[in-house]
Amino acid sequence: MSTQDLIRQLREPNKTKIVLLVADGLGGLPIEPGGKTELETAVTPNLDAFAAEGTVGLSTPVAPGITPGSGPGHLGLFGYDPLVHDIGRGVLEALGIGVEVGPKDVAIRGNFCTIDAEGHVTDRRAGRIPTETCEALVAKLQAGIKIEGVEVLVEPVREYRLVVRFRGEGLGDRVCDTDPLSTGLLTLEPKGEDAASEKTAKIAAEFLRQAKAILKEEKPANFLMLRGFAKFPKIDTMEEVYGIKPVAIAVYPMYRGLARLVGMTVVEPGKTLADQIEVAKANWDAYDFFFIHYKYTDSTGEDGDFPRKVAMIEALDAEVRKLRALAPDVLIVTGDHSTPSRMRAHSFHPVPTLIWAPATSRPDLVTTFGERPCLQGGLGQFLAKDLMPLALAHAGRLQKFGA
Amino acid sequence: MSTQDLIRQLREPNKTKIVLLVADGLGGLPIEPGGKTELETAVTPNLDAFAAEGTVGLSTPVAPGITPGSGPGHLGLFGYDPLVHDIGRGVLEALGIGVEVGPKDVAIRGNFCTIDAEGHVTDRRAGRIPTETCEALVAKLQAGIKIEGVEVLVEPVREYRLVVRFRGEGLGDRVCDTDPLSTGLLTLEPKGEDAASEKTAKIAAEFLRQAKAILKEEKPANFLMLRGFAKFPKIDTMEEVYGIKPVAIAVYPMYRGLARLVGMTVVEPGKTLADQIEVAKANWDAYDFFFIHYKYTDSTGEDGDFPRKVAMIEALDAEVRKLRALAPDVLIVTGDHSTPSRMRAHSFHPVPTLIWAPATSRPDLVTTFGERPCLQGGLGQFLAKDLMPLALAHAGRLQKFGA
Repeated sequence: MSTQDLIRQLREPNKTKIVLLVADGLGGLPIEPGGKTELETAVTPNLDAFAAEGTVGLSTPVAPGITPGSGPGHLGLFGYDPLVHDIGRGVLEALGIGVEVGPKDVAIRGNFCTIDAEGHVTDRRAGRIPTETCEALVAKLQAGIKIEGVEVLVEPVREYRLVVRFRGEGLGDRVCDTDPLSTGLLTLEPKGEDAASEKTAKIAAEFLRQAKAILKEEKPANFLMLRGFAKFPKIDTMEEVYGIKPVAIAVYPMYRGLARLVGMTVVEPGKTLADQIEVAKANWDAYDFFFIHYKYTDSTGEDGDFPRKVAMIEALDAEVRKLRALAPDVLIVTGDHSTPSRMRAHSFHPVPTLIWAPATSRPDLVTTFGERPCLQGGLGQFLAKDLMPLALAHAGRLQKFGA
Repeated sequence: MSTQDLIRQLREPNKTKIVLLVADGLGGLPIEPGGKTELETAVTPNLDAFAAEGTVGLSTPVAPGITPGSGPGHLGLFGYDPLVHDIGRGVLEALGIGVEVGPKDVAIRGNFCTIDAEGHVTDRRAGRIPTETCEALVAKLQAGIKIEGVEVLVEPVREYRLVVRFRGEGLGDRVCDTDPLSTGLLTLEPKGEDAASEKTAKIAAEFLRQAKAILKEEKPANFLMLRGFAKFPKIDTMEEVYGIKPVAIAVYPMYRGLARLVGMTVVEPGKTLADQIEVAKANWDAYDFFFIHYKYTDSTGEDGDFPRKVAMIEALDAEVRKLRALAPDVLIVTGDHSTPSRMRAHSFHPVPTLIWAPATSRPDLVTTFGERPCLQGGLGQFLAKDLMPLALAHAGRLQKFGA
């Protein structure tokens, strides 16, 4: 029996409130041997107080050694095993730029490319055209392409990248990429592996035919390739699984999209973490699970900017104080993965995590929040997908199993 | 999805080097209450330095409470779940004495025994004949037995034990043991559970018929019994799963055989750990995964010789220093199981483990290598099969999972 199946059996209603504050890419590494991580360096009196009163540990997002993208990282935190619930590339790309994806949709990643007179690809990235060119070309495609029986949406991403969404009845997503993966070759024809996917493949072929005509005179982006065809994955909502009403208060589109995937209501978050906490306060009675996403611990890590990541953690700490006034029954502070500024990338390292639940927290000996202190914590090292059952338990939302 | 399936998807080439140094039976126990283990007693400045700079923890070879043999112990370290990949007894016995086992082979454990005139077993171990007698009898069998269509190899093990290997086309291994398990009974006829195994059973019956004739006049070993029929297990190689080129530098046949099972190249190791490290150095450019096996931490433990095990750990420590000069990207020091000298046997206790990876190790607070320090380490307690994903991650050989 999966943990989610067990929880469906055991869940019971309560009026308790859970706050999940995700500091994206929270975990880090020291820059120098013997040094401290970003979180250990940051002065965080408020997080330290929650850590001292609550229980801390380290979360492994997917499995030991596995570096997650934002999708699997968040699914784990929402209690969905990222190895079971796979979200296709096209859907993630669409969510990342704020394109909604629903059950009737197939989302696809697109690349502008350059082809020669015979149709051979000469540049798979069309000379990395500037984003403004991408936007102009996408506008032409959107205006020009009409396909019967399907709603076509084209959106720019960045440079040579775009997203295409087909919305229609009975569309499958088992369609091959059209990128031949090397220059000097013809682009591939989209082909479907089953009847529904063949329907999508035919639409894609017509899309490409019209796009080729529209882009014919452009330089260097005179064609495009499609890859990562993906449908909206079938995921039971958090309300169905846990019996809670969740709300997402996230500034960046990717995280709003991921929240929608698991059935969260997405509300306008404002611009800053202070705004987000205000929004939580304003919606306090309407929901019982509050997902608050904070991006800047990740983006500064990806920039390789150790001092800036420290500053972003300290900025988070200053706001976290206000959550105490909301008096949630359970507060979780964690990350979806580590983003050490030393690596300038997501990493596989476990993520510092705290659960603060005044009524039920069993204290450990840890009084500060950081990678090394968390090693001594009462949560030990655990898989991210086990966090939701712990949150529900602390919130008094799970009955006893067996008599 | 299994971890190995995931790794196949995520692996990416790199030029990084991984060294896996297995100190067989490394973990131990104190002799007296309040005392130190062998590893804690040993003076190990070099291991301590790696532990201080790297991350340590405790490896559970198979599952809590399970004492592994060398086969499951090493499969776990190589990243193969020992509960999924079962290696038959016959194959392990063959590997242990240096008999090669390939895809066309069935390997079988044999026992010399004593039977009376009616064929009833009177001694299942033939009075534990000395090994020299075993060798002489095996030579007679090898010289005398001829079976059409199959290549027969007979090799002595020790005392009354031997190994038989049939090499031929289409041989199965689902063949019952011929040992009746009590004296006073007739030996059993080999029987196959399927067509391929019935072929093997017929060959085994003919082997036993000829052996009975050859051994007729011997005392006390006038017959033999066969058990543990086993084929070479179907295991994908480490290169297939991880995309690495592995080499085994192991002195003892069992570990060379286990390395071959997972597709490692086996090279001449010399005689000492110093030789083995020289061999690693000489082969540094040709491979990217170096399995170095050190036996004496286990054999001294099995002898119940605490001070000698301490000395063997210190001897290892002195050599480990030289690995630093090779500058591997990842160095792992661990054992395949514990062998406490107090128990004179393999045990189920978790195994001290260190991962040293200068570019990506997240430091913990541990500065010495030992069972108790490892309890405080950043690796926590983990399953041995999770070690390879961590090694590959530290070696920059795994892409991000999902976007």
